[in-house]
Amino acid sequence: MTTAINNKKIVLVVGAGDATGGAIAKRFAREGYIACVTRRSADKLQPLVASITASGGEAHGFACDARNEEDVIALIEQIETELGPIEAFVFNIGANVPCSILEETARKYFKIWEMACFSGFLNAREVAKRMVTRQRGTILFTGATAGLRGAAGFAAFAGAKHGIRALAQSMARELGPMNIHVAHVVVDGAIDTDFIRDNFPEKYATKDQDGILNPEHIADNYWYLHSQPRDAWTFELDLRPWNERW
Amino acid sequence: MTTAINNKKIVLVVGAGDATGGAIAKRFAREGYIACVTRRSADKLQPLVASITASGGEAHGFACDARNEEDVIALIEQIETELGPIEAFVFNIGANVPCSILEETARKYFKIWEMACFSGFLNAREVAKRMVTRQRGTILFTGATAGLRGAAGFAAFAGAKHGIRALAQSMARELGPMNIHVAHVVVDGAIDTDFIRDNFPEKYATKDQDGILNPEHIADNYWYLHSQPRDAWTFELDLRPWNERW
Amino acid sequence: MTTAINNKKIVLVVGAGDATGGAIAKRFAREGYIACVTRRSADKLQPLVASITASGGEAHGFACDARNEEDVIALIEQIETELGPIEAFVFNIGANVPCSILEETARKYFKIWEMACFSGFLNAREVAKRMVTRQRGTILFTGATAGLRGAAGFAAFAGAKHGIRALAQSMARELGPMNIHVAHVVVDGAIDTDFIRDNFPEKYATKDQDGILNPEHIADNYWYLHSQPRDAWTFELDLRPWNERW
Amino acid sequence: MTTAINNKKIVLVVGAGDATGGAIAKRFAREGYIACVTRRSADKLQPLVASITASGGEAHGFACDARNEEDVIALIEQIETELGPIEAFVFNIGANVPCSILEETARKYFKIWEMACFSGFLNAREVAKRMVTRQRGTILFTGATAGLRGAAGFAAFAGAKHGIRALAQSMARELGPMNIHVAHVVVDGAIDTDFIRDNFPEKYATKDQDGILNPEHIADNYWYLHSQPRDAWTFELDLRPWNERW
Repeated sequence: MTTAINNKKIVLVVGAGDATGGAIAKRFAREGYIACVTRRSADKLQPLVASITASGGEAHGFACDARNEEDVIALIEQIETELGPIEAFVFNIGANVPCSILEETARKYFKIWEMACFSGFLNAREVAKRMVTRQRGTILFTGATAGLRGAAGFAAFAGAKHGIRALAQSMARELGPMNIHVAHVVVDGAIDTDFIRDNFPEKYATKDQDGILNPEHIADNYWYLHSQPRDAWTFELDLRPWNERW
Repeated sequence: MTTAINNKKIVLVVGAGDATGGAIAKRFAREGYIACVTRRSADKLQPLVASITASGGEAHGFACDARNEEDVIALIEQIETELGPIEAFVFNIGANVPCSILEETARKYFKIWEMACFSGFLNAREVAKRMVTRQRGTILFTGATAGLRGAAGFAAFAGAKHGIRALAQSMARELGPMNIHVAHVVVDGAIDTDFIRDNFPEKYATKDQDGILNPEHIADNYWYLHSQPRDAWTFELDLRPWNERW
Repeated sequence: MTTAINNKKIVLVVGAGDATGGAIAKRFAREGYIACVTRRSADKLQPLVASITASGGEAHGFACDARNEEDVIALIEQIETELGPIEAFVFNIGANVPCSILEETARKYFKIWEMACFSGFLNAREVAKRMVTRQRGTILFTGATAGLRGAAGFAAFAGAKHGIRALAQSMARELGPMNIHVAHVVVDGAIDTDFIRDNFPEKYATKDQDGILNPEHIADNYWYLHSQPRDAWTFELDLRPWNERW
Repeated sequence: MTTAINNKKIVLVVGAGDATGGAIAKRFAREGYIACVTRRSADKLQPLVASITASGGEAHGFACDARNEEDVIALIEQIETELGPIEAFVFNIGANVPCSILEETARKYFKIWEMACFSGFLNAREVAKRMVTRQRGTILFTGATAGLRGAAGFAAFAGAKHGIRALAQSMARELGPMNIHVAHVVVDGAIDTDFIRDNFPEKYATKDQDGILNPEHIADNYWYLHSQPRDAWTFELDLRPWNERW
């Protein structure tokens, strides 16, 4: 239990993919936090854990199905017992799969919500239970423009993102007075990912003029929110490239 | 198939409870519509069907689990085959069950969403598929203030209501140009129901000064939305008693 | 003072132009209201007054600079003294003049606000003072999408329309409990006017497929809002053609 | 012209009062910016200028009626000519004067708008004209919750704050693609000022538990917004104490 002895703080990033989630984990690790990162399959986490470790940080990867309540409860229990108290929690699972409402299947509508909203509830609730006993902590959600307005072809994704925003807002109002900082980041634009590179090459080409979001810059905002003194907490901020139409 | 011969139009009200849903069914029946009404158990629908019939209208009750895709598909198929085309669809299932986020169970969070959002998606999608082939129809959703903002103790309900609003907005933007009118009614206040009478007697006592919403007046607004000419469609309107704080 | 003897109700429409304002006046007149209509120059009001009179209604035109407090106070005083109590008030002055923020002059920015917001305050306040003494009345504002979001090239118009919406919302919250119904109509789309016909012919050509708003249909919504029973008042509704992008 | 030679950057704070505006000026000065600060009377600026200078920074106080176009044009011209290019501009004039709509005078309604909105337009436009020629710069507006919703007794203040938000949003959309970062800060809560101390002592007493906003912490957020890389710009963020009801 050297970790607990060292009083190192823990950040838990659920949905620690190659871009935003990974960048957030690295950012907090750079500040001395133990980065606990989860994805569905552990092997995909190895490069991230290795990268943080190579930079002198501490990271632990956990395979966890974030939609499964038992798994989530066990994960939080394990982290808090073996590593220490979770100081910051980041929920970063997205599921931006457009589809005409006329073609949308029940299965897909459900899956998108389950991944991008329900698992956010499960993880955030479980972490919040611990945080309120300590009367401290930060809970951060990755949102999207689809959380603010529904668009043609985005009923499922907008539904999930509206749901996560409602969760964030409800938690902020309930847990703020318990000294838990809950915030929601509206990412409005394409992020520098393999997905954008492979599927939207024209968009990706705007990278050299800063037309797509750098995950490290997104991560800076999560750290910033976590660092705010409690007399001036932000609930919501938006992030978009300078030349994005909105 | 006299109905089809008579070219009577059909309104389908999913969630035809004792208050709002029932009043909407009656309102459309009064205008000559065949009222198809659903609840989970058919026997609770009998008084409503009997009431409409007694007033010279036509009504049909259907027991249907609105959360079950096969049931929903079968229901829409049955109505369209046996009675005629659905001209107006109203989704009116609520699930206003407050709970601290710290106590909220996964099962309840899911159930509230399944009832108040997922079943709305299932039914609206299935009806929309028919309407777009005819390039006409109205789809109306009952919303709540919780669909606009999350509140302490309302993460689950707010999540579901945000989801239904996102669905409504996405459908309005996609289906409007196909001549389908999609609208969302924000009911902000206590409705004259047995529930309010039994649980909030002080609130209920304001009824004689119009402090709670009369379901028939809510229903008038659904009829009004359905009647709007298409050069001036409303997507969203709110309804609240004159003396409600908001 | 036959009017007062007859107990006829009065609607005051400030900004009774050829399209929306005029149609609103006619709509209320058709319901038996005395229509008091104002514009800056009285002669432009004559066709409207004549038209209402020819239809068997009663109308009175008033030249009034709606931005001038003394004029406004005198107008309201005159109407209430000579004709009777104002039951419904409609503020309908717009000023949709786009301009780059870099080119916007102080004079124009001010004028747009003065016309579309300040005069709304002056007139609504003055009417409200009368209404609260009677504990009854309706105050309706014509809004626009620019009242909900600012767009490039619309800083002045968006500012004025945001201001009028803030006024409407503040008044609704303060005066609702005094039995004054305050509402805000968001008109989102081109209206069937000479201006659209002359300046946006392509848009105007969509008229035969209901692609532009019919002022009479807009007017129906004002009448509808005024007619709502007080247990179910609407503060805000939007109006747009079925095929409008939004 | 040593300043220009030194290539020091300039921040202009319009409305550099004792709390927020002053703190912002100090914050930028600490980062090496020349702080140009304005108020209506120059003598009130002396302590601020002295304080920045004493800390090794550079500051210049300007008496300027921010509502007067000629004054504003002359001020910007003077600063750009004598000191150098304005890199960041902060508009921080408020006017939170509540009043019943029934008692609000035209003069006060106008004055509040003129101070808190019109002068924001004048100054921001004038600064923007310079910034676009250089294709760089930051424009920051201090907003309030009243900019998002109207409240009983706040028609004038809400109108002005809605107007400034509309201005900010319109400018962000127009000038973003010209590499000008425009942002709007929603301050939601009491700030640590003499005014709060003297008029809301109970509120002020929550200071020792961080229940009121520290101006220096607000200022940090302005600096943060100014520092964001352009692939991830924030348009709007809110700030409130942890225990604030919202």
